[in-house]
Amino acid sequence: MTSSLLTDLYELTMLRAAREAGSAERACVFEVFTRSLPEGRRYGVLAGTDRVLRAIADFRFDEADLRYLRRTGVLDEDTLAFLADYRFTGDVHGYAEGELFFEGSPVLRIEGTFADAVMLETVVLSILNHDSGVASAGSRMITAARGRPCIEMGGRRVHEDAAIAAARAAYLVGFASTSNLAAGAHYRIPVAGTSAHAFTLLFDTEEEAFRAQIASQGAGTTVLVDTYDVEQAVRTAVGIAGPELGAVRLDSGDLGAQAREVRALLDSLGATSTRITATSDLDEHRLDELAGAPIDGYGIGTRLVTGGGHPAPGFVFKLVEREGADGAMHPVGKRSAEKQTLGAGKSAYRLLVGDRARAELVLPGEAEVAEFERELTAQLLASQAPAEWARTRLRPLQVPLLQGGHRVWDLSPVEALEHGRERHASSLAELCLRPEDGPDGPIAIPTLTDGAQAARALG
Amino acid sequence: MTSSLLTDLYELTMLRAAREAGSAERACVFEVFTRSLPEGRRYGVLAGTDRVLRAIADFRFDEADLRYLRRTGVLDEDTLAFLADYRFTGDVHGYAEGELFFEGSPVLRIEGTFADAVMLETVVLSILNHDSGVASAGSRMITAARGRPCIEMGGRRVHEDAAIAAARAAYLVGFASTSNLAAGAHYRIPVAGTSAHAFTLLFDTEEEAFRAQIASQGAGTTVLVDTYDVEQAVRTAVGIAGPELGAVRLDSGDLGAQAREVRALLDSLGATSTRITATSDLDEHRLDELAGAPIDGYGIGTRLVTGGGHPAPGFVFKLVEREGADGAMHPVGKRSAEKQTLGAGKSAYRLLVGDRARAELVLPGEAEVAEFERELTAQLLASQAPAEWARTRLRPLQVPLLQGGHRVWDLSPVEALEHGRERHASSLAELCLRPEDGPDGPIAIPTLTDGAQAARALG
Repeated sequence: MTSSLLTDLYELTMLRAAREAGSAERACVFEVFTRSLPEGRRYGVLAGTDRVLRAIADFRFDEADLRYLRRTGVLDEDTLAFLADYRFTGDVHGYAEGELFFEGSPVLRIEGTFADAVMLETVVLSILNHDSGVASAGSRMITAARGRPCIEMGGRRVHEDAAIAAARAAYLVGFASTSNLAAGAHYRIPVAGTSAHAFTLLFDTEEEAFRAQIASQGAGTTVLVDTYDVEQAVRTAVGIAGPELGAVRLDSGDLGAQAREVRALLDSLGATSTRITATSDLDEHRLDELAGAPIDGYGIGTRLVTGGGHPAPGFVFKLVEREGADGAMHPVGKRSAEKQTLGAGKSAYRLLVGDRARAELVLPGEAEVAEFERELTAQLLASQAPAEWARTRLRPLQVPLLQGGHRVWDLSPVEALEHGRERHASSLAELCLRPEDGPDGPIAIPTLTDGAQAARALG
Repeated sequence: MTSSLLTDLYELTMLRAAREAGSAERACVFEVFTRSLPEGRRYGVLAGTDRVLRAIADFRFDEADLRYLRRTGVLDEDTLAFLADYRFTGDVHGYAEGELFFEGSPVLRIEGTFADAVMLETVVLSILNHDSGVASAGSRMITAARGRPCIEMGGRRVHEDAAIAAARAAYLVGFASTSNLAAGAHYRIPVAGTSAHAFTLLFDTEEEAFRAQIASQGAGTTVLVDTYDVEQAVRTAVGIAGPELGAVRLDSGDLGAQAREVRALLDSLGATSTRITATSDLDEHRLDELAGAPIDGYGIGTRLVTGGGHPAPGFVFKLVEREGADGAMHPVGKRSAEKQTLGAGKSAYRLLVGDRARAELVLPGEAEVAEFERELTAQLLASQAPAEWARTRLRPLQVPLLQGGHRVWDLSPVEALEHGRERHASSLAELCLRPEDGPDGPIAIPTLTDGAQAARALG
């Protein structure tokens, strides 16, 4: 299947009209960014970039696509002939997958003619909005889990294909494994699972169910202990598996209180190395509350895969610069009050002092970057603490992704995901978040769009 | 691609353990239901049934699937051989697609051996949760739109494949069209679109952009008028297209106030038949507020496709009845406090008085239905208003979908969607909702699980 119909109709009618008006070959710069972070969020996580690049490569119109478009009656034969030959031949730069983003961060920049770029809007946004929504929620959960391993198990709460992408986004931000087999097959994400109530209920007694599971899976398995009576179930499971029992899963009730009781019971039975896994509508706030409970790992579903209340970061795909009738490039932007855009292709840097991120710098051009560096040098010379100023640096955030329509880095889906996982871990470490501040701690860093102002703000 | 890996690992390890314990051939009844409706929701809409039936037909393990599963190391050769030959051979009954559901409604019942049914859990829930989440939100929006046509245009805010299913679910509940071309191609949903700010910004002046659009699309097109100055844009567009201008789209600001100004302006320019389309983060509450504004149609995106704050209705897939060692069927259910299940395969009826739904009747067996009818007759005989009682009837909600693994009704995806759209319209009409009560009016009908009680409750 091609990706070309994962598109809103208006992109094709705009293409047709621009071609007929002779404007479709104007050079254009489109940017993807969000106007704001959801309330309470300190950062977002970019995810889906590698999937976007694959969708752009698959953005071709095959015969079935063209047959359908002809039938709609909205396109003429000339436009259909253009589509039949279409391949994206422009350039794409963007933040590395796994990178953090803030208000206004230009996470993707697409350069090409209007005809090259306009049709990519929907599929680019679908992928980045979905994957980044899950990654942004998941990253907060990993911090709140304080090192306890988390299994992604939300596939049943989202569209069946979105489930695979959600598992991918969760792994990107540090989840240890997924329950989703397709994600395991496609991305080599470790798969994990426990047992369902249906399994216990299938047998005439809980003991028979546990015996069957342990005989089949070995003593290291995780048994689900809350079908009937938790205490009795723990005793039964340890009675069968002995102290080698891998883990017990709690899926209902007051998880913190239950975990304490079960831990004491397991210890009293000599099962001191048997772990406790908790599941049941967990999110970063619940994980934060459970920090003191003797829980060894979490299974997280609904709240993760649906973006924790913010299913999409609100990424938009905007024309920010284009060739005019004079042949020169001009910044452009909508003028209406609450949706104004800055215009012009921007450069983005993470401003670091030592290893710590202090600001997101989004500057309209090279001149602004040079101004920032001049200003910084002046501050350094005038400062009472020159060592601090000397540790200031700009980490460039944009990397080339496509050149002339071709991939700059040719990574497999598995390699791209591993790279993103490492990038995310490094970038998150720069925020120096403290889990004890809770998931809704102070906004980590501001977005600054003026170099001189940024240098002064460091003072 | 098969659908068999759209599955959580534990379903396969449970299958293996049950087979090894000799319990996998026990007859089982699984039911899909939700424990509660989201707060403020009066009903949910079942969507995705036809997609579920197709996923069950595609639930086969091909060589690539088996190769991956072998590599995970969690399954033995005997289980892999079973999977290679697996086809679902059980029976499925369920609510018709498009039907309303309430707390506890058994929207799908799967009967077969444990081995037959246990692996379907994830894919069945993914589809029904996603599609019903969108349909449940969309149905409220259609009521709030009070007959004004709505275009689904949210594809960019969700996973690219979920976008297609979301457009389908929106059409099921009464949306007039979608912007998503893949949904148009696959389901023959009418496609619609306007124009983006990028198109206006591509040109040196707004007038050039409008001329290009109107020359290409005809005067009946919809122009986007809020890129620079709304009033000027409306004058420009009418100046070019004349009073035949199809529509103008407002996408920012106070939509109600702007619509009034634009309507007056259009009328003063003689463009009395030019329509006004509004977009920009609309949901049922915003539509309700805009009921008095001179708006002719809506484009609805984010809040629709993400389920309006409730992305999944929380459907679960539970074992409710199974064969015991004695060869007889036994109701089963988890005992833990807040997640208790009723157990046993249930029959469901919409209780109607005249054309109006009064309750959802979910009864454990035929005896309960007979008891209800006896009780109803007694009430009728004793009543002061026998005419009212005589108009009471039970509409059965469950229809056969698969028998022995084969489809009972062989509909194309397009036909199934049209059937669902009709079913939804009919079932919604039975609720007799009044748009003027607002989207969060009183809960329409209760779920009753006791026949005698239900008959008395009608008094």
